[in-house]
Amino acid sequence: MTTQQLVSEIKKKKSFLCIGLDVDLDKIPAHLLQEEDPIFAFNKAIIDATHHLCVAYKPNTAFYEAYGIKGWKSLEKTINYINEKHPEIFTIADAKRGDIGNTSTMYAKAFFEDLAFDSVTVAPYMGKDSVEPFLAFEDKHTIMLALTSNQGAFDFQTKTVDGKELYKQVIETSKSWKNSQNLMYVVGATKAEYLADIRKIIPDSFLLVPGVGAQGGSLEEVCKYGMTDDTVGLLINSSRGIIYASNGNDFAEVAATKATELQQQMENILK
Amino acid sequence: MTTQQLVSEIKKKKSFLCIGLDVDLDKIPAHLLQEEDPIFAFNKAIIDATHHLCVAYKPNTAFYEAYGIKGWKSLEKTINYINEKHPEIFTIADAKRGDIGNTSTMYAKAFFEDLAFDSVTVAPYMGKDSVEPFLAFEDKHTIMLALTSNQGAFDFQTKTVDGKELYKQVIETSKSWKNSQNLMYVVGATKAEYLADIRKIIPDSFLLVPGVGAQGGSLEEVCKYGMTDDTVGLLINSSRGIIYASNGNDFAEVAATKATELQQQMENILK
Repeated sequence: MTTQQLVSEIKKKKSFLCIGLDVDLDKIPAHLLQEEDPIFAFNKAIIDATHHLCVAYKPNTAFYEAYGIKGWKSLEKTINYINEKHPEIFTIADAKRGDIGNTSTMYAKAFFEDLAFDSVTVAPYMGKDSVEPFLAFEDKHTIMLALTSNQGAFDFQTKTVDGKELYKQVIETSKSWKNSQNLMYVVGATKAEYLADIRKIIPDSFLLVPGVGAQGGSLEEVCKYGMTDDTVGLLINSSRGIIYASNGNDFAEVAATKATELQQQMENILK
Repeated sequence: MTTQQLVSEIKKKKSFLCIGLDVDLDKIPAHLLQEEDPIFAFNKAIIDATHHLCVAYKPNTAFYEAYGIKGWKSLEKTINYINEKHPEIFTIADAKRGDIGNTSTMYAKAFFEDLAFDSVTVAPYMGKDSVEPFLAFEDKHTIMLALTSNQGAFDFQTKTVDGKELYKQVIETSKSWKNSQNLMYVVGATKAEYLADIRKIIPDSFLLVPGVGAQGGSLEEVCKYGMTDDTVGLLINSSRGIIYASNGNDFAEVAATKATELQQQMENILK
């Protein structure tokens, strides 16, 4: 999917919502545990109830790997279901991968070819040659961690490197990498005020913003500092606040209600 | 496995060799492709031929994920085979994971519980609360990236942060994390001269050292600067230089020959 197609979807749906599909068997409604594939059954119900309200789905791979081969099968069924039923929706494998060159190529194949995701999240610590193998895939997007939403972000990311915070160095440096036009960045909503500075470095790039809702970030603040004029430039992720809003039989319906609330707020902001 | 058990194995085998099981179907002998599970068939032959020469095996998860569910099954069969046949061998899931707290817990479950690895590699970019969930598993080890063997290590890891290189800050900071006694560190052999400084910060911790062989690092240099007095404190990894030394019918035999060469060099150094 091209960036232009993503922007069109955002304008059509009046939404820049991304729903995180982080399925924990301890948290889903008990009746689903009798299904052959409870994880996929849960995801399918959430997708059926919310696809018109969001422009992206983001399964976090950890939640699937924790269940081994069965989990990986559920992930495969989930991405295939989205791609078949709703090919207009942008898909993100939230995997936070990164390794030496030939190994990053294998990860890129895993998420872009074996599982046909539109994008994958990567970690920057190993530098240019650990990220460029992902960028080499045309029509795919690589979403690099810049400033994350957790407390640990202050351990290294905000430390000063050569007169500039590490997360800014990471963003700045990545602009010179081959096919950097395929880069997006993760910036946590819990640090919305940092977005003004980030926009000075990358005025147009898309940002994937976790941390709205359960982690305490504010949608209004993020949009105030991070939204771009023409293309919106933001994907706001909510996971737990939507998918676990109810663990009764009405979980999908309540998820849709929660997603609608966010979509409505977004529609108001887009006006 | 405890660190003491690992040290005992090193002394018994006179080896601190780790063999990387990075299986690429384009590189293994053609006759194996007719097997039901070519990746496992390859690993089994390598393990059968080399288990007396090494103290650790390190499958890199990227090479398995690239083949989807089939690859994940091969990984599961490989770790189960090692644990059943050679429980004295230390196992490393080279996965370079790291995410916010509840998500890192899911990754830890994936590698420590679902797949019963002794250790997993993690990335430090997201800080303390992304690594501590791994450290919470007693009798397991968490191997954190410090200074990697690739060129991209110079992009951020060696940059100066508050008067000290980032990789040193990462190591120094991690010493204060909960259960930090379960930490080991990745330090590339291609940067052996840095090991002297690293040993000033962590005199006793085990280091996993990639980059000997195919990437050009020197075993002698690594041992000169990185070896500890009593416990050796090093696991030297070789992947391609051993497992792809031949792609004929004699691949396992030639892998054993290459592993023996390294083991012999290690035995001489240990004298």
